[in-house]
Amino acid sequence: MLGEREPEIYGKTTLAEIEASCRAAAERLGMDVEFRQSNSEADLVAWIQGAKGKADGIVINAAAFTHTSVAILDALKLFSAPVIELHISNPLNREPFRRRSYITPAATGLICGFGPHGYVLALEAMSHLLGERSGG
Amino acid sequence: MLGEREPEIYGKTTLAEIEASCRAAAERLGMDVEFRQSNSEADLVAWIQGAKGKADGIVINAAAFTHTSVAILDALKLFSAPVIELHISNPLNREPFRRRSYITPAATGLICGFGPHGYVLALEAMSHLLGERSGG
Amino acid sequence: MLGEREPEIYGKTTLAEIEASCRAAAERLGMDVEFRQSNSEADLVAWIQGAKGKADGIVINAAAFTHTSVAILDALKLFSAPVIELHISNPLNREPFRRRSYITPAATGLICGFGPHGYVLALEAMSHLLGERSGG
Amino acid sequence: MLGEREPEIYGKTTLAEIEASCRAAAERLGMDVEFRQSNSEADLVAWIQGAKGKADGIVINAAAFTHTSVAILDALKLFSAPVIELHISNPLNREPFRRRSYITPAATGLICGFGPHGYVLALEAMSHLLGERSGG
Amino acid sequence: MLGEREPEIYGKTTLAEIEASCRAAAERLGMDVEFRQSNSEADLVAWIQGAKGKADGIVINAAAFTHTSVAILDALKLFSAPVIELHISNPLNREPFRRRSYITPAATGLICGFGPHGYVLALEAMSHLLGERSGG
Amino acid sequence: MLGEREPEIYGKTTLAEIEASCRAAAERLGMDVEFRQSNSEADLVAWIQGAKGKADGIVINAAAFTHTSVAILDALKLFSAPVIELHISNPLNREPFRRRSYITPAATGLICGFGPHGYVLALEAMSHLLGERSGG
Amino acid sequence: MLGEREPEIYGKTTLAEIEASCRAAAERLGMDVEFRQSNSEADLVAWIQGAKGKADGIVINAAAFTHTSVAILDALKLFSAPVIELHISNPLNREPFRRRSYITPAATGLICGFGPHGYVLALEAMSHLLGERSGG
Amino acid sequence: MLGEREPEIYGKTTLAEIEASCRAAAERLGMDVEFRQSNSEADLVAWIQGAKGKADGIVINAAAFTHTSVAILDALKLFSAPVIELHISNPLNREPFRRRSYITPAATGLICGFGPHGYVLALEAMSHLLGERSGG
Amino acid sequence: MLGEREPEIYGKTTLAEIEASCRAAAERLGMDVEFRQSNSEADLVAWIQGAKGKADGIVINAAAFTHTSVAILDALKLFSAPVIELHISNPLNREPFRRRSYITPAATGLICGFGPHGYVLALEAMSHLLGERSGG
Amino acid sequence: MLGEREPEIYGKTTLAEIEASCRAAAERLGMDVEFRQSNSEADLVAWIQGAKGKADGIVINAAAFTHTSVAILDALKLFSAPVIELHISNPLNREPFRRRSYITPAATGLICGFGPHGYVLALEAMSHLLGERSGG
Amino acid sequence: MLGEREPEIYGKTTLAEIEASCRAAAERLGMDVEFRQSNSEADLVAWIQGAKGKADGIVINAAAFTHTSVAILDALKLFSAPVIELHISNPLNREPFRRRSYITPAATGLICGFGPHGYVLALEAMSHLLGERSGG
Amino acid sequence: MLGEREPEIYGKTTLAEIEASCRAAAERLGMDVEFRQSNSEADLVAWIQGAKGKADGIVINAAAFTHTSVAILDALKLFSAPVIELHISNPLNREPFRRRSYITPAATGLICGFGPHGYVLALEAMSHLLGERSGG
Repeated sequence: MLGEREPEIYGKTTLAEIEASCRAAAERLGMDVEFRQSNSEADLVAWIQGAKGKADGIVINAAAFTHTSVAILDALKLFSAPVIELHISNPLNREPFRRRSYITPAATGLICGFGPHGYVLALEAMSHLLGERSGG
Repeated sequence: MLGEREPEIYGKTTLAEIEASCRAAAERLGMDVEFRQSNSEADLVAWIQGAKGKADGIVINAAAFTHTSVAILDALKLFSAPVIELHISNPLNREPFRRRSYITPAATGLICGFGPHGYVLALEAMSHLLGERSGG
Repeated sequence: MLGEREPEIYGKTTLAEIEASCRAAAERLGMDVEFRQSNSEADLVAWIQGAKGKADGIVINAAAFTHTSVAILDALKLFSAPVIELHISNPLNREPFRRRSYITPAATGLICGFGPHGYVLALEAMSHLLGERSGG
Repeated sequence: MLGEREPEIYGKTTLAEIEASCRAAAERLGMDVEFRQSNSEADLVAWIQGAKGKADGIVINAAAFTHTSVAILDALKLFSAPVIELHISNPLNREPFRRRSYITPAATGLICGFGPHGYVLALEAMSHLLGERSGG
Repeated sequence: MLGEREPEIYGKTTLAEIEASCRAAAERLGMDVEFRQSNSEADLVAWIQGAKGKADGIVINAAAFTHTSVAILDALKLFSAPVIELHISNPLNREPFRRRSYITPAATGLICGFGPHGYVLALEAMSHLLGERSGG
Repeated sequence: MLGEREPEIYGKTTLAEIEASCRAAAERLGMDVEFRQSNSEADLVAWIQGAKGKADGIVINAAAFTHTSVAILDALKLFSAPVIELHISNPLNREPFRRRSYITPAATGLICGFGPHGYVLALEAMSHLLGERSGG
Repeated sequence: MLGEREPEIYGKTTLAEIEASCRAAAERLGMDVEFRQSNSEADLVAWIQGAKGKADGIVINAAAFTHTSVAILDALKLFSAPVIELHISNPLNREPFRRRSYITPAATGLICGFGPHGYVLALEAMSHLLGERSGG
Repeated sequence: MLGEREPEIYGKTTLAEIEASCRAAAERLGMDVEFRQSNSEADLVAWIQGAKGKADGIVINAAAFTHTSVAILDALKLFSAPVIELHISNPLNREPFRRRSYITPAATGLICGFGPHGYVLALEAMSHLLGERSGG
Repeated sequence: MLGEREPEIYGKTTLAEIEASCRAAAERLGMDVEFRQSNSEADLVAWIQGAKGKADGIVINAAAFTHTSVAILDALKLFSAPVIELHISNPLNREPFRRRSYITPAATGLICGFGPHGYVLALEAMSHLLGERSGG
Repeated sequence: MLGEREPEIYGKTTLAEIEASCRAAAERLGMDVEFRQSNSEADLVAWIQGAKGKADGIVINAAAFTHTSVAILDALKLFSAPVIELHISNPLNREPFRRRSYITPAATGLICGFGPHGYVLALEAMSHLLGERSGG
Repeated sequence: MLGEREPEIYGKTTLAEIEASCRAAAERLGMDVEFRQSNSEADLVAWIQGAKGKADGIVINAAAFTHTSVAILDALKLFSAPVIELHISNPLNREPFRRRSYITPAATGLICGFGPHGYVLALEAMSHLLGERSGG
Repeated sequence: MLGEREPEIYGKTTLAEIEASCRAAAERLGMDVEFRQSNSEADLVAWIQGAKGKADGIVINAAAFTHTSVAILDALKLFSAPVIELHISNPLNREPFRRRSYITPAATGLICGFGPHGYVLALEAMSHLLGERSGG
């Protein structure tokens, strides 16, 4: 499980707390997770390319790059396992340019507006998606 | 917990199976759920208006009305508790007119693309939202 | 005089109070009024079709249907007496999709932004329109 | 053969006359037809859902709902037999919002502008489509 | 009460007749009205600026400037008392460029389509708005 | 009856077969038909201009010119008898530029999506239109 | 014949030279012309209103107001005799906002791109239009 | 002087009469004119290409091709002498697609709305343009 | 140095205070400044036309006319010395129609968002621009 | 190998020189080429239709028709072998209407901006495409 | 004071000269400035994030990223002190895509079009903004 | 000759094979080539800036950055030698956002749709362009 990027920590939850609650959820679900965070579009692209064939799925919060990066879209399209797009707030209810997501066409599912708890929901959703694939 | 509308059962899961898995999840989460299904926009509006002050939250799959009903938006805006918008597939990846959701501005959170399992995720998300409200 | 639909009672005025002040105004103006309220587009269409040849005019607050219902437009176009479009707030100053009114092309006049008092103004305006028609 | 909805009778032909000429044409073509008419989008959706597996085809004049109803589109898409979209006048030559048809993507064929006679043409077209399917 | 501008006298009513019926209505309502008419955008702006702190409200028929004058909008925005936008015909039903009103965002209420009688309706509406403000 | 242009023969029906079935239908309906086919916009314009006063109606499948030729529109507008626009498939369901038809504003009726059989339907529709004109 | 406004004298021709060549042309054509020039939209509106019933036609070069003044359009629409819109250069070939002319819908004819000589052409065109009206 | 194309003869003036009045005007102005008329875009392109180096100017009424032909634009751009675009009515006041002219960017001047007399005006304008070129 | 127009004095700074701080800055920079303020577009146009050949530069706060006046643009384009466009707040962050500036294409530089101090910055910028021109 | 159309010979290279360098390149590559040039859209359509089953590929410079001809698109779509779209300059960098190419969706590859040498490049590219097909 | 990025040095001024004149201005104004330059969006984001709580203001010339980077916008929005957006030329007068600035909504003020001297103006403006904050 | 970036290797050709066939072509053409590949926009910008004055031309496959990077456009604009834009598939035939290329305005020529062989064509085209420059 590839990690994700989260530059805008809203409210009182720190990135460390998010990571802790994700690790707890992953353990409960029997999954291995790996966290990655970067401001660099090139890093994100490289991580996604590197996850191909190694990770069973990607949960991605591409933050601002959601609205501007065709490179991340192209990298995700070449990744054959499930991708979950995550947003802490709901970008569809913000400025018009945030309504365009380049990531969505490459995403199996979308979760937004639930704050840091969205990461836990995304792990549960991923667990279900992978279960369906293997056993389904 | 008000129920929801789901006319397009994709794949092999029936409405009864969705209801059963939701009831199981609700029981695990200690929630009461009520299911409602109708083809009528007027019914949906009336149910939402009737839920005001009685339900702690609404999970709504407005299906086709997502893209055409301002009346449902207006009803949801008057409902003060959390609203979760749910779609079985991801309408952002379908025809352009499905990219406009009248429901989203009234929704606390959005879950789409996870098939029938989305209902279980929505109940878990709602449980978390209500816990945050009551206990902080 | 056909009634109208008013689901969004803003402020402290109840629907009963609006009806009372309308009846008082109608009595003063020597008019008979009939009130109708429904969440159903089909009811509104049926009432307008039924008013043809029976009512001398229609005051309509189509609320959310203003922006989505071509069926109400088509029904009003077949109604030959005056139609007054009424809004409690001014939809032109709200979300962009509220700037499109399907009702307006079928309306003789338009009154918006005066709160519940708009109904009394609409009756006065209707009284004037009907007086012009009958006597000049 | 499911019936259809026709609220705008233009000219001097009544709905009964249309039904009569359709029944005559159907008899000549060896088809059974059933007529349905309603102002309610929910009724139309229910009839289309109910026709699945029972009717060999649908001729639909969705009138104003043509331009506003995604729910009818979704119901028609799940109907696997031929669908003919019918309009008495040509909506492409009227107001711009009538140029958008949500029905068309689910329609096998389209007939408009021939007045009430369009229903007879639609039955002949349907007869041909069904003949092609069964016999080639 | 500041007066208003009315360059397009439709039908057989003259500007003098409008002024007379307004004065009669004002007397009945216990209001003082002042009439102003000009072809000059600069005059309109100056009058609105001059009315600040002196008039209790403005009824404005900005005619063609409705669609082109940001300067009038800016002047009205600095005026703190009620503003009623008035049109003799309904500009929403005319050429597309008449659908854009720069005045509306600064208006408390909007009345259009009632011909010269709209001025009397506007005075009655203004009387009600001022009564609500002073007495509740 | 002027003929028409048909460059895209889909499926297994040849142009000769279409002509044969049209001639059979015309004979049954008591009509004379004339077939014309060309790749040249100028030929189509000339034929339409030449049909004025000689043909009782035109059935036209302008194919690609439907979407690009104002000259054909102008020629058809000067033709005073009925015009039926025909398409073998439904251009409204293809690329966006095929949704714009320059021909439609000059057409009495429109038939599309019925394959080669559309020509027979068009002849029947034309027969009805001409019957209405002459006998009423 | 009302005069016109010309703030942008291109090239070496002065306003006086234009006036002189117009007077010569008017004399040759047996017309009386009156010249008016102002930077004020209000003046132009007042002149057009004042010309009603007095002038047999208007040649107007509204310069920058062509693209911004609905007030001039409304004034010209109330003027019942011929109006010729004139531009020294061709605004259709300049910035996009110069492609929108509010004046054109009120103009009988349009002449642009001929420099100062355009005024002489406009007088000749006006002479012809007036001759057609009086004598046919 | 290359001729021009005029397929839409409005009113009672025939093409022969236009040609006659043009010949008279040309004689008065000391010019040689040549008339050409065709429904074929290819003919128009060929004539314009052939006029290069032979004609001193082109008066072109491209009729419907005005709005659709980039080929005529490209041919006119390679023609180095003056081009006058002529329309009998004013296409800017007709359907929206007639507001786009591909010809205008290649035209020195534009004359529209004066009926058949526009040809005479165009010859006078051309005479002036050529005089300016040769003598200044 | 031509003055400028400033109708919207935000905050606690009066127009007199702005003028005083500008005069102080001008004295420090060795410049002569002249202040002009008007609500009339015609005055602004006339002042700009009058400044040609007399003023070494223009600092203009066209306020609402920024978004509506092509006439001011045309006047500024004929002015050959530097023009600085000034706004007290930043119109690019306000309503969409304020994002279109007709003035900007004629402006050498743009300063916005610094409140009344923007005038002092504009004078310093102008001083630098003029120094570059004269001394290089 | 079907030829192509090239009406705009830029610079000093003549059509004959292009043909010569193409013949040289074709000989070197072991290909047969046939040259065609016409101003007529109908000719181009006919040549493409005639090439079906005879030519192994088409190199087409549709010049102005690139932006206006759906008929050429439809002809190319029915041609099953490789199509190379060629432009001497790069239309994407010219007027906005030249950015729309109707040809591109039917083209295997696109070469633009290399002047007359583009024809040689196109032949080399075609040779490679055909080699891949036959030999893999 | 955080530094800024400047990849496009126009004219004869080098980056070193700009830095020198800024240091001189900063010394005169009693400010400390720090210069940063990078081609990397990630560097810019990191610097802005790092400036939070350390710098009293940011002057940013985001160059090409102005038009494409939502990440810089998000970083600037979390920075609570004043931000000045700077451009050496005026992007509003260049290609349309340069009219969209993602930076502007996060900027207190905007300076463009003054060449390298804009940096000195920005420092003076920042000095004034900070003085207003601290002293009022 | 600066190298290029190619993250999406379609089909069975590896990046090493492309490099080999390019080196073979370069040797045949007497050119030196240098290959560069990166996921980082900043690297691409730096390489282009570094190529100024050193490379005789650039062949660039900017992949996803084609559609989002103004920074690459700005870097290429400052590069004075020929630039060839290359795409393996044809982005004009993919999603609408891929139709916008920021690179094209800085490109001398464009080659797309020929798969990996496009690199060889680009080298041949570059060789021709450089030959024209040096020898004419």
